[in-house]
Amino acid sequence: MQRFRLLVEYDGRPFSGWQRQAGTPSVQETLEEAARKIAPHERIVVHGSGRTDAGVHARGQVAHIDLEREISADNLQGALNYHTKGWPVSVLKSEVVPDSFHARFSAKKRHYIYRIINRRARLTFDKGLAWHVKTPLDADAMQDAAQVLVGQHDFTTFRHIHCQAKSPVKTVDYIHVERQGDELLVKVGALSFLHHQIRSFTGTLQLVGLGKWTKADLKAALEARDRTALGLNAPSDGLYFDRVEYDCDQAAAPTGPTSMA
Amino acid sequence: MQRFRLLVEYDGRPFSGWQRQAGTPSVQETLEEAARKIAPHERIVVHGSGRTDAGVHARGQVAHIDLEREISADNLQGALNYHTKGWPVSVLKSEVVPDSFHARFSAKKRHYIYRIINRRARLTFDKGLAWHVKTPLDADAMQDAAQVLVGQHDFTTFRHIHCQAKSPVKTVDYIHVERQGDELLVKVGALSFLHHQIRSFTGTLQLVGLGKWTKADLKAALEARDRTALGLNAPSDGLYFDRVEYDCDQAAAPTGPTSMA
Repeated sequence: MQRFRLLVEYDGRPFSGWQRQAGTPSVQETLEEAARKIAPHERIVVHGSGRTDAGVHARGQVAHIDLEREISADNLQGALNYHTKGWPVSVLKSEVVPDSFHARFSAKKRHYIYRIINRRARLTFDKGLAWHVKTPLDADAMQDAAQVLVGQHDFTTFRHIHCQAKSPVKTVDYIHVERQGDELLVKVGALSFLHHQIRSFTGTLQLVGLGKWTKADLKAALEARDRTALGLNAPSDGLYFDRVEYDCDQAAAPTGPTSMA
Repeated sequence: MQRFRLLVEYDGRPFSGWQRQAGTPSVQETLEEAARKIAPHERIVVHGSGRTDAGVHARGQVAHIDLEREISADNLQGALNYHTKGWPVSVLKSEVVPDSFHARFSAKKRHYIYRIINRRARLTFDKGLAWHVKTPLDADAMQDAAQVLVGQHDFTTFRHIHCQAKSPVKTVDYIHVERQGDELLVKVGALSFLHHQIRSFTGTLQLVGLGKWTKADLKAALEARDRTALGLNAPSDGLYFDRVEYDCDQAAAPTGPTSMA
């Protein structure tokens, strides 16, 4: 048996999310069905480093898969990309790793990027790939307020009511809000996140950017530890699972300008 | 009568090109039909600064339109974007200009960018939006060879046989080939271009990047003044009409990171 680590990019638009669900297409199922064509007699499971919701994208999701069949890492990449044709999923990298590596449990830090396009005109290329906010946003105010969320907190306010995590306490390592022309990037890193945490952060920070909320309002919402104190949940369109870090490497970053990091 | 100058972005994938053609969707027709809804009793013509072929994109196409109906530039932008809904066309900017302004004849320089994604793995987000070249390309060799094409030349070799220009002589102001991670950008500027000129440049430069052609081969192809000496015509997918410069302004550049300039 060999364990392979895969770096996976996907456009989340046609998927009901990462996780396999009966009756709707998922990224996990798309990869597992492709792997089944390569090793039809094996029990195939593709383990992701984290789930993404319906419509959420990935530049650098990491997954692992075990195969009895002998195949090189390069051939596995080529075969998976061949058999996922027709779906916007692509294996950017494939490598053999020790059995001790686990895409989910070995992960030390997860990095997400949320893209907002802040202009009056409708989106063309980026429809479904960014949140379109027409009113000018104050990125500096958003960056300043966001620092309230950094560190260890009870994030009940920023957690979906169906979140399955045992505790609402998480540690956010950083949040950076940056403007690049008419695009705003909200970059967030942590060991792990609650369900909808980044979308809840971004939706509420957008209220700060519009001048409707102050930094103090954001702090009060956090301290309320109450989902009803949430300002707004941002749509899935702008969210990208950017990369995962593991102890065994510097960073599992996708190369190239396709990474927005 | 008022003349409006429009800055237009479009994803070329669903269009047969800029120019109106019976029976197939074009960007010009999409904009003209939208304008007709605003001014139903007027003879509507949208003049572009240059035509783009089927599948070619624009970040900063410029067009002008004359309207008898009184409307502010802002409302015209909003109304055009409303009535082009469903198509990946967006008016980024609208302003009133003197009648002496002509989108095509007043243009002083046109800037195009050709995107190549140079990686083994299939494209996801960029399918139809870049040329996918799997074999590693030597961007430095391409940049060096490209300088052969700069200046005034007879570009018959790099001209589509249906090109309607009177003369094959054009002046290319610059060509820059730049690598950004796994993306290569070929940036070209000139007063005007022959039909398929940039795609022919890029296709042939790609042969240099692969090591199949030398700079001397490229020079010989140019000097042959013969279409059959062309190496390769690149697909429409990667070509973007980036911006147009006019005497009356510094640059009609779209703002923001969506511009790849």
